[in-house]
Amino acid sequence: MNPDITRERQNASFDVEKLTYILDGGPEKTKRRRQIEALVFSDPDFHEDDPNFLSRSERYDQAVRKSAQMVLKLREYGIADPEEIYYYKSMVRGNQQEPFGLHVVMFIPSLRRLCDPQQAKKWLPLAESFQVLGTYAQTEMGHGTHLRGLETTATYDPATQEFVLNSPTVSSIKWWPGGLGKTSNHAIVLAQLYSLGNCHGLHAFIVPIRDMKTHEPLPGIVVGDIGPKFGFNEVDNGFLKLENVRIPRENMMMKYSKVEPDGTYVKPPSSKLTYGTMVFVRSMIVGESARTLSKSCTIAIRYSAVRHQSEIRPGEPEPQILDYQTQQYKLFPLLSMAYAFTFVGQYMTEIYHRISEDISQGDFNQLPELHALSAGLKAFTTWETNSAIEVCRMSCGGHGYSRSSALPDIYVEFTPTCTYEGENTVMMLQTARYLVKSYRQAEKGQQLSGIVSYLNESQNRRVQPQAVASRRPLVDINDLSSLVQVYQQRAATLVEMAAKSIQQELQRRKSQEDAWNNSAIDLVRASDAHCHYVVVKVFNDKLKGVGDTAIHSVLSTLALLYAMHGITKNSGDFLQTGLVSVPQVLQISVRIKELLSQLRPNVVALVDAFDIHDKKLNSVLGRYDGNVYENMFEWARRSPLNAAEVHESFQKYLKPLRSKL
Amino acid sequence: MNPDITRERQNASFDVEKLTYILDGGPEKTKRRRQIEALVFSDPDFHEDDPNFLSRSERYDQAVRKSAQMVLKLREYGIADPEEIYYYKSMVRGNQQEPFGLHVVMFIPSLRRLCDPQQAKKWLPLAESFQVLGTYAQTEMGHGTHLRGLETTATYDPATQEFVLNSPTVSSIKWWPGGLGKTSNHAIVLAQLYSLGNCHGLHAFIVPIRDMKTHEPLPGIVVGDIGPKFGFNEVDNGFLKLENVRIPRENMMMKYSKVEPDGTYVKPPSSKLTYGTMVFVRSMIVGESARTLSKSCTIAIRYSAVRHQSEIRPGEPEPQILDYQTQQYKLFPLLSMAYAFTFVGQYMTEIYHRISEDISQGDFNQLPELHALSAGLKAFTTWETNSAIEVCRMSCGGHGYSRSSALPDIYVEFTPTCTYEGENTVMMLQTARYLVKSYRQAEKGQQLSGIVSYLNESQNRRVQPQAVASRRPLVDINDLSSLVQVYQQRAATLVEMAAKSIQQELQRRKSQEDAWNNSAIDLVRASDAHCHYVVVKVFNDKLKGVGDTAIHSVLSTLALLYAMHGITKNSGDFLQTGLVSVPQVLQISVRIKELLSQLRPNVVALVDAFDIHDKKLNSVLGRYDGNVYENMFEWARRSPLNAAEVHESFQKYLKPLRSKL
Repeated sequence: MNPDITRERQNASFDVEKLTYILDGGPEKTKRRRQIEALVFSDPDFHEDDPNFLSRSERYDQAVRKSAQMVLKLREYGIADPEEIYYYKSMVRGNQQEPFGLHVVMFIPSLRRLCDPQQAKKWLPLAESFQVLGTYAQTEMGHGTHLRGLETTATYDPATQEFVLNSPTVSSIKWWPGGLGKTSNHAIVLAQLYSLGNCHGLHAFIVPIRDMKTHEPLPGIVVGDIGPKFGFNEVDNGFLKLENVRIPRENMMMKYSKVEPDGTYVKPPSSKLTYGTMVFVRSMIVGESARTLSKSCTIAIRYSAVRHQSEIRPGEPEPQILDYQTQQYKLFPLLSMAYAFTFVGQYMTEIYHRISEDISQGDFNQLPELHALSAGLKAFTTWETNSAIEVCRMSCGGHGYSRSSALPDIYVEFTPTCTYEGENTVMMLQTARYLVKSYRQAEKGQQLSGIVSYLNESQNRRVQPQAVASRRPLVDINDLSSLVQVYQQRAATLVEMAAKSIQQELQRRKSQEDAWNNSAIDLVRASDAHCHYVVVKVFNDKLKGVGDTAIHSVLSTLALLYAMHGITKNSGDFLQTGLVSVPQVLQISVRIKELLSQLRPNVVALVDAFDIHDKKLNSVLGRYDGNVYENMFEWARRSPLNAAEVHESFQKYLKPLRSKL
Repeated sequence: MNPDITRERQNASFDVEKLTYILDGGPEKTKRRRQIEALVFSDPDFHEDDPNFLSRSERYDQAVRKSAQMVLKLREYGIADPEEIYYYKSMVRGNQQEPFGLHVVMFIPSLRRLCDPQQAKKWLPLAESFQVLGTYAQTEMGHGTHLRGLETTATYDPATQEFVLNSPTVSSIKWWPGGLGKTSNHAIVLAQLYSLGNCHGLHAFIVPIRDMKTHEPLPGIVVGDIGPKFGFNEVDNGFLKLENVRIPRENMMMKYSKVEPDGTYVKPPSSKLTYGTMVFVRSMIVGESARTLSKSCTIAIRYSAVRHQSEIRPGEPEPQILDYQTQQYKLFPLLSMAYAFTFVGQYMTEIYHRISEDISQGDFNQLPELHALSAGLKAFTTWETNSAIEVCRMSCGGHGYSRSSALPDIYVEFTPTCTYEGENTVMMLQTARYLVKSYRQAEKGQQLSGIVSYLNESQNRRVQPQAVASRRPLVDINDLSSLVQVYQQRAATLVEMAAKSIQQELQRRKSQEDAWNNSAIDLVRASDAHCHYVVVKVFNDKLKGVGDTAIHSVLSTLALLYAMHGITKNSGDFLQTGLVSVPQVLQISVRIKELLSQLRPNVVALVDAFDIHDKKLNSVLGRYDGNVYENMFEWARRSPLNAAEVHESFQKYLKPLRSKL
C-alpha cells in the first residue's frame, strides 16, 4: 500500500463503509453487489488482457466470447433480477460495451411489446434460446431523431402474401444499430408500410438477415460493420441495405396494427405512445452518468494523492498534487457533482417506479412530467459528465493520456450517451416545451403541481429582470435551502424569459414554429437552469435523510460546494436576475476556497466510498493500493509493440534510408 | 456536387479566394502552399488506407515508412525553408503524428545547442544522415514539469573516464519521449550529474541505446513502447531504464558546462535560460490550435449544410440542420474563434520573429513578455480548441462518432497540446506571475509598456468591484473597439483582484508561497481574462488592415460575435465589475441572435476560405463536394471487420452457445 494513500485514509472524518451503504441503498444491497462482483472477478473464464492491446477484430471476438459465457453463467447462477443482471453484466464489461446489448435491451422487449400472441409464441423461445439473435434497426444513414423521415419501405404483395423490403436510397440504409454488423441473424426493421397503393406510416417487421445455420447474409441483404468509431470497439454497429427482400406477411409485428392477407390495412386501436421504454432508458442513463463520474473522480483523486510534483515551498519535498488549489478546484466540484448525480439517479429510479405503478393502474397524469424530467436530466447529467471526465483525465497530466489510466476508455464509451437515446439539445428542447407549457398554464391561473410547481410563484412575483436587479437579495449564501430557492428562482426567471422571447417573436408576425426556433437558445438555457435546480434540490432533500453526523457533515460540505460552484460558474445568470448581489458572488468565491480546504482530508475516503472494484476500474492510476508506477511499467511491457525488441520497420525502412542518404 | 452545398456557395457575399490569401499571408503563400500540397497528394508513395483500419503495429509501420520517404523527398525536391518543411510534413501526416518528430524538432536542435564544436562535428553528420536517430529523454515516470525533481543519475568514474547512468527507482524511468520506444538508437538523456561525490544538477548526455547495426537494445538498456494512448498511435512514445550504462566522458554535452578527465566539474559561464525553444514551440501551438479548430469547423459546418433533420414547420421538407438556431449557436461562435485564433497565431509568429531579432542583437528586454504571452496563449487557445472540437463532433450527431468523420482523430491528436510543452494550468500561472509582477511595478509608479501597459491605467482607476458595480457603464456594445476596452478593463480588474488576494493572504501571516497557492484560482482567472483580451484586441487590429469591403464586413461580424459571445459566456465577470449593465447583457443576447442570422449565408464560404484539402481533412462529413452518404457507405465497406462475411466468432461462440441452451 502506498504510504500517501494510507495516510489519506487515516485522516478521514467518517466511516467509509456506512457511506457506501447510503450510496448502494442499504447494507444488504452492498453485500449482494459484492457477491456478484466476486462471482465475476474470481471467474477464470472472464480473465483477459487489456482490450487496448488487441485489434478491433480480436476485441470483438473476445467480447462475443464473454457475452456468450455471460448468458450461460447467469442461468447457471440463477440470477434473474433485472438490477442484478445489470450489475453482473456491468462487471463483466468493465469499461467496454458488449455486442449482445440490443438483443436483450431492445429485440426481446420489442418482441414482447409488438408481437401478437401467435407471433410471440413463435419468436420468443427462439430469441431466448439465442437461435435467433436480433437487433433493432431504426436509425438510417440520413435519418435519426425524426422518425417520420425514415425512408425504408415495406410493400405488401397480396399475390404471394409477402412484404417486399427495400432501401430505396443510400441515405435509407439502416446505420448504427448495435450487433447488426456481424452478430445478429434477425433484425426488427422499422419501415414505411405500403399496401394497396397507400402509405400507412412506420411499422415494425421481423426480418431474417443471416442464414440460421451458416450465418451467411441472405439473398438481397447487404449487411456489415459500419467501421471503427470513437470507442465501442466491442460492438459491431452495423449497416443493412435491403434489396427486394421478401418476408412472409406474418413477420409484420401485428399486436396493434395489421395487414390482412388481401392487403387491407387495419389501424391500431389507439396510438398510445411508447414513451415507457425511452423514459426508462433515459432514467438509467442518469444513473450511468453518476457511476461514470464516480469512476473518473476515483481515478483522478487517488492519483492526485499519490503523485508528487513541483514545489509549493522552496526546499521542501515535492507536495502531493492534491495540495494545489488549482487541482482541488478542478476535482472537488466534480466529486460533489458525482455525489449529486448519484442521488439524482436514485431519485429518477424512484420516480420511474412510482409513475410506472400509476401507469400500470391506468393513471397517465404524471407521464409528461416524468418524460420532461428524464429527457432534461439525461441531457444535463451526460453533458456535465462528458466534460468532467476530460477534466479528470487532464488533471492527471501526461499519464491521463495513457490507456492504462482507463480515462480515455471511460470517455469514449460514455460520450455517446450525449447523442443516443435522444440527442441532448433535442432533449433539452423537449423539457423546455413542458416548462413553457406549464408556465402558460400557470399564467392562465391553473395551479401546477409536482416539480414545476415553482412556476406558480413566478406568476405572483412577475419577474422583470431589470427591476429585480435593484432589489436587495435576501439569500443566505451559507444556507443550502436558501441556495435551493435561488436556483429555483433562476429557473423560474429563465423559463419566463424564454416564454417571453417566443411571445415577442410571435408579435413580430413569426409563425409559432419560427418563434420557437428563434427562441431555442433561451429555451435550452431555461431547461438547463431547471435541471440544475432539480439536482441541487434533490441533494438537499437527500441530506435530510442522513442520520450519521459525520457523514451528514461531509455530505453537507459537498452539497454546499456543488451549489456554490454552480453559482460562480453561472454568476451572470444570478447577478442578472438580481438573485445574488455582487458582494455575495465575491463571498461565494472565498467560501469555495474554504470548502476546498475543508474537504481536502476527506476526498480519498469520499471516492473510496463509491467502492468501485479495482478490476472494474481497470486503471493503473486509480488503483486502491496507490502503487501506480510499478504497475504502469508492468502494463507497458505487456504492450504488443514490445513483443519483439526490434520492430520489423527497422529492416524495412530505417536501414534502407541510411544507405540512400 | 451536393446541391445544398452548391447553393450555400452561391449565396456567399464575398470572394473566398481573396479571404484565403489573407489567411495565408498573401497570394504567393497560397500558391506555394498549394504547390506543396500537390507534391504530396499526387505522390503514389503516400497513398494509404485509413490508419483507423490498421492495428497499432501496422500504423507504426506505415508511419515509419512515410517518415523515411519524406526525408528522401524533401531532399529530392530541395525543400529547406522551415515553414515549407513544416507544411510538407503536415500534409504527409494528415490527422496523425509521425515517429521521427523528436529527431528533427528536439534531437538535432539540441545537438546544435549543447554540443561543443568537437562534439558537433562528430554527432551532427551522423544525425543528419539518419545513422544516428535520436530523441530527447527528459520526462520520467514520476516527474514532469519540475526538472529539479528528475532522479536519473550520471555518475562520473575517473578511472575509466566514463559516466555511469542509472535509473535508481521505478519513478525515475524515462517515460513519454516520442520515438524512444522503437525508432531511436540514441537519446539525449537528462540526468543529475555526480562527480567526485558532489551533485551538480541536471545535465544532458548523449546515450546510445540500440546497436547501430542490429538495432538491438545495448547492455543495461531496458527500452520499449509505453503502450497504447489516447491518440498518437503512430508514435512510439517510449520508456528507458538505465542499469549501470557506461558512456564515454565525451558524451556529456559540453558546450556550457564540463567535467574534466579527473572529474573536476566546470560550471557554465552563465545560466542563461533556454527560454527560446520553449517559446518557439508554444507559439507554434497557438497556430496549431487555429488550424485544428478550422478543420473541425469545416467538417461540422459543411455537414450541417448537407444534413437534413426533423422539421421546423410541419409538412415542409426536413430543413438543413444549419437552420436550427441551436446549431448556429453551437458552431458560429466557434467559427469566429477559428478566425480569431488564426490571427492570433499570425500575431504570435510575428512577435516571435521580432523579439528573436532583438535577442540575437543582445536585447533580452522583451523576452519575459514574450514568454508570458506564449505560455498564456498556448493554454488559452488549446483549452478553448479542445472543448470546441468536441462541440463540433457532437454537433454532427451520431456520424460524428464514426472515425470516418475524422473528428475523433482530430480530438485525440490535438488534446495532448493541453499538457505537453507546459501543462496549461502551470502555463496560466506563469503568465499570472508576469501579470502580477507588472501590476506591482505599476503600483510602484513604474510605467509599463507592451501588452500589459493597460495595467498602468488600472492604477489610476483604482478599481473597487463594489463601487464599480454602481457606476454607469459607457460601453457601446455594438462597437468592437469599445468591447476591446471592456475586455481590457475586465483583465485589469481580475489581475488586481488576484494581486489583492495574495496580499490578503500575506496579511494573514501566510508565507509568500502559500499566499500564491491560496490565490491560484484567481490567478488563473486573471490570466484567462488577459489572454481573452489579447485575442479580441488582435482580431480588432487585424480588421484595420483588411481593405476588401465585403471581406471586412463579414470579418467584422465574426469579430463582433466572438467578442459578444465571450461576454455572455462570462457575463458574471462583466456584471460583477460593473463594466456592462444588466440591460446590456440582455441586448447582447438579442444581438448575438441577429449576428447568427447575418452570418448564416456566409458560413460555408467562411470555412471554404480555410482551403483545407480534402485529403488533409480526410473526413467523409467534411468533404468539399458534400457527398457524404455514398462515401460513408464505401468507407464502411472497406472496414477490416467486413473482410469476411461471417466472423470467426460465430463458429467459436455463437453456434456452441445455442447447443448449450
